Amino acid sequence: MKVKQLIGERLKERPSDCQTESHALMIRGGYMKQVANGIYSQYPPLRRICQKIEKIIREEMDAIGGQEIQFPVVLPASLWEESGRYRSVGEELLRFSDRFGSPLVLGMTHEEAAVHLVREYGQSYARYPFMIYQIQTKFRDEARPRAGLIRVREFAMKDAYSFHTSQEDLEQYYQQCYHAYERIFARVGLPQVITVASDSGMMGGSISHEYMLLTPVGEDSIALCPHCSYRSNLEAAPNLLPSPEQEELQALTPVETPHMESIEQVRNYLHVDAAHTCKAVVYQKRSDSGYVVVFLRGDLTVNETKLTNYLGEELCPAQITEESGLCAGYLGPYGLHAQAQVLFDRSLQGAVNLCCGANRTGFHYTGLCMPRDLPEVEFFDFAKAVEGGICPQCGRHSLTISRGIEVGNIFQLGDKYTRSMGMQYLDENGCLQYPIMGCYGIGIGRLAASICEVYRDEHGPIWPISVAPWQVSLCCLRADDQEVRKAADALYDCLQKQGIEVLYDDREIRAGAMFTDADLFGLPIRVVISPRNLKNGCVELTTRDGTVKREVPIEQAAEEIHALIHQLYGELSSHVR
Amino acid sequence: MKVKQLIGERLKERPSDCQTESHALMIRGGYMKQVANGIYSQYPPLRRICQKIEKIIREEMDAIGGQEIQFPVVLPASLWEESGRYRSVGEELLRFSDRFGSPLVLGMTHEEAAVHLVREYGQSYARYPFMIYQIQTKFRDEARPRAGLIRVREFAMKDAYSFHTSQEDLEQYYQQCYHAYERIFARVGLPQVITVASDSGMMGGSISHEYMLLTPVGEDSIALCPHCSYRSNLEAAPNLLPSPEQEELQALTPVETPHMESIEQVRNYLHVDAAHTCKAVVYQKRSDSGYVVVFLRGDLTVNETKLTNYLGEELCPAQITEESGLCAGYLGPYGLHAQAQVLFDRSLQGAVNLCCGANRTGFHYTGLCMPRDLPEVEFFDFAKAVEGGICPQCGRHSLTISRGIEVGNIFQLGDKYTRSMGMQYLDENGCLQYPIMGCYGIGIGRLAASICEVYRDEHGPIWPISVAPWQVSLCCLRADDQEVRKAADALYDCLQKQGIEVLYDDREIRAGAMFTDADLFGLPIRVVISPRNLKNGCVELTTRDGTVKREVPIEQAAEEIHALIHQLYGELSSHVR
Repeated sequence: MKVKQLIGERLKERPSDCQTESHALMIRGGYMKQVANGIYSQYPPLRRICQKIEKIIREEMDAIGGQEIQFPVVLPASLWEESGRYRSVGEELLRFSDRFGSPLVLGMTHEEAAVHLVREYGQSYARYPFMIYQIQTKFRDEARPRAGLIRVREFAMKDAYSFHTSQEDLEQYYQQCYHAYERIFARVGLPQVITVASDSGMMGGSISHEYMLLTPVGEDSIALCPHCSYRSNLEAAPNLLPSPEQEELQALTPVETPHMESIEQVRNYLHVDAAHTCKAVVYQKRSDSGYVVVFLRGDLTVNETKLTNYLGEELCPAQITEESGLCAGYLGPYGLHAQAQVLFDRSLQGAVNLCCGANRTGFHYTGLCMPRDLPEVEFFDFAKAVEGGICPQCGRHSLTISRGIEVGNIFQLGDKYTRSMGMQYLDENGCLQYPIMGCYGIGIGRLAASICEVYRDEHGPIWPISVAPWQVSLCCLRADDQEVRKAADALYDCLQKQGIEVLYDDREIRAGAMFTDADLFGLPIRVVISPRNLKNGCVELTTRDGTVKREVPIEQAAEEIHALIHQLYGELSSHVR
Repeated sequence: MKVKQLIGERLKERPSDCQTESHALMIRGGYMKQVANGIYSQYPPLRRICQKIEKIIREEMDAIGGQEIQFPVVLPASLWEESGRYRSVGEELLRFSDRFGSPLVLGMTHEEAAVHLVREYGQSYARYPFMIYQIQTKFRDEARPRAGLIRVREFAMKDAYSFHTSQEDLEQYYQQCYHAYERIFARVGLPQVITVASDSGMMGGSISHEYMLLTPVGEDSIALCPHCSYRSNLEAAPNLLPSPEQEELQALTPVETPHMESIEQVRNYLHVDAAHTCKAVVYQKRSDSGYVVVFLRGDLTVNETKLTNYLGEELCPAQITEESGLCAGYLGPYGLHAQAQVLFDRSLQGAVNLCCGANRTGFHYTGLCMPRDLPEVEFFDFAKAVEGGICPQCGRHSLTISRGIEVGNIFQLGDKYTRSMGMQYLDENGCLQYPIMGCYGIGIGRLAASICEVYRDEHGPIWPISVAPWQVSLCCLRADDQEVRKAADALYDCLQKQGIEVLYDDREIRAGAMFTDADLFGLPIRVVISPRNLKNGCVELTTRDGTVKREVPIEQAAEEIHALIHQLYGELSSHVR
């Protein structure tokens, strides 16, 4: 491919609306163009990167017995009604109707379609286990797309579904898939991806893992313990607390706190430490707008995933009205009389001498003692784990919270879908059973963006050779010089004939401009032919990451490039277990 | 791949709801499963067929300088408003809104997205010409999906878009693409596909061709002249008529025709030949429900494509109300007083002594002479060309009408999209110009179904080797016989190591059942290992089309299979120009 024919523009300036460097570089480098919020078209370089990622994924899925199939993008609502998700999933599921008014959805995940496809096939135990996968466009109507391909609305995803006759069989296959994922991430250049326990969310099922690339620009928070192997998405991490220390109980006393509606204001005014405060967070249920009030220790934050899982329904931030009986800014657990579901985080279990709202404008209580004043309440885990918190595995106060991008996930789904959709098989004894399922996803574009986020410098991406849009960047400096052009043309032809992927820049432009573009293409190997090095019968051979930089005689160039490609692949595969 | 692990079921019985044999075989053979009307999931065999077709298309598109990109499936309505198609295209365009109420469409073709992608890139003449293409899922909300993959709502399509600075350059590229299409069809096994002139329809532009596979189950009608090279979609074929013969003019006379509301009833009653009748066909405009009345000779049929093109808007069948002033069943051109747009087909030009409705219930006229009684009217071509009609190229009465499946199309779009969407470039003289475009489509699934429609027998498809899901069907008869199984396993391993695609059937089932399945898989080469032929140290080597059937020594089997694969590819490529 010649640069002068490649469609797409390289931009000099960093676009101002990009939140991450990978996003900025992929816009600047002519990789993609936004069509609508969270919806992109791909230029040839990104298309090629995605195709290479897809090929690696296909090879690894096929290697563990996966069979590639294809589900539709547009699905009838009836399928999602069978599983119950037509109602239970929120607005991310895009619902619409066809010309005859039949309700449809845009597939955001394909558990229902998978069960539909194999419902008849899987009627005998002898056909298990099996795994099917597709690589297909999906749509998720995200409220806040961001960071380029990291969080989009339309995306290509590899989604796989396995079917089993026993939990043991699922777990065994789950392990196979777990390792296949490790190989995939290593092959695309991201061996540093870690697995963390995750919340199963709307997928159902119990055990699930996410593959996380730790990076400050990630949108997930991950709880890690440096002392043991504990790793969990913050959404799924329990918040453990030491037993409260023994204290002398104070009396429950109302105090005037005029115009102090935040817990910080009250703390400063009354000189109370955060651990002796109790705050309220109010939500409304999406289904019936009913209020939900969560009380927790003043220095903690509600983990909305835990809360949603507990309630089994979706929530939104509350609009507190006069009629609600909720005294905004002064809510407290003692003497609260309101039409609301009231929940207590376990940070308040056994807590004494607390400061909290008095359900009366301008007043708080001090000296609230939970065991004494509210002896009947139950406590659950609704708070986010915190930096320095207790590791649920080793028990040390050692948790750290990091940011990460979720580049893949694997779920054990149990029989949620097969049972709700009536898929059964006859077992060895002639009894009807529900098969159990696993599902396994990798977002293609997000993975491309994650690779870019890790491998880049201020000038552009530094693509690993396995996913680079082309392997070699061939730069002909002074293409107006007949001799230089002749040598460059010959090397281009020679490399192409050997099946090496070359992006050839023979434009008559300044060296600086050519290198700026080459940096944005980020190809792993660069070959420069110029009047100066040609005078010595040489070309310059470098790698984009700066580890190789040497002059090689032009007649050995093809051979050396070949060897370098081989070496770069070798370095990648050394991480593949 | 082993048959016993392959997901999907083969059915004994022909499904009753299939209109075409290819549809029935692709359901029976476990190729696909309907998810909703006109929406299918693909099992592994079909997925593999489609991937092979896609690979051939990619190679040919790349060979003519195409650059693969990807557009989104979901597009903002605003893009389609720029081109005007958001309003002009009918209900096939599926319109809906996202969670914030922003209007979106499902891409059914991507001219707008193509212009959006290259609007900045294409600002200088030096960057032309260029061609971009994608292979992507599309959705067209067809009112009547039918015949399996022949007419669906969701489908994968290769769509390409070229951009040019002159009509000459477009035409030159159009020729290249024309030949690339011929190579594609030949390589997938359909060298018999012909090109016909076509109507540009909603795409805009003037010159366009469709690639038609002639078959009685096709849904398009094609006018062909066996005497010259004239070939046209019936939609685009002019209906030529000989000059009317001289006749003595009759007087315009009302006659009573009680309860005769069809032209056939009136003809029989009054003993008039069809050429001396004038009938009315009534439509309503989709935009404002205004009536459109078309008068034409009684033995002809309205070509709705021509009519829609003339009017520039969409029509639907009319609901004739009392208030309309239209006298249903007795409409005639003389004395018609109604709120309607009245049009005349040129079959009535100069016609005399016609029988027609008298706009009065129970009455017709005889003796209507157009030049005398309605001297002011204009005539246009609104009728379908007919079998035996005049060829517009050679002038003979030689037209034949055949059925065909449209497997591809190429359009010269002119500047319809670049002008409406404001894409311009600076030419050599520094003047702003609108580039002109070509577009080029091939439906992947429809092509697969068309191949199946041509290459099949009563037992199953006979896939050409270039698109067959696997190249070789290896049948182990009596897999319970250790020696037979050992030989078959060894051959399977040996072939796989050579990179040959084998579907291996080692199920312990009857030979009849195994061959029934093998016929439904339709793989071009079949190898049978049985106790009987193994006794002679042989395996049976046959082709699915019956042209090869021989015993070969087992130690030569791999080599012979290799040679046969080579030979089959050779036969296909002999059709590639």
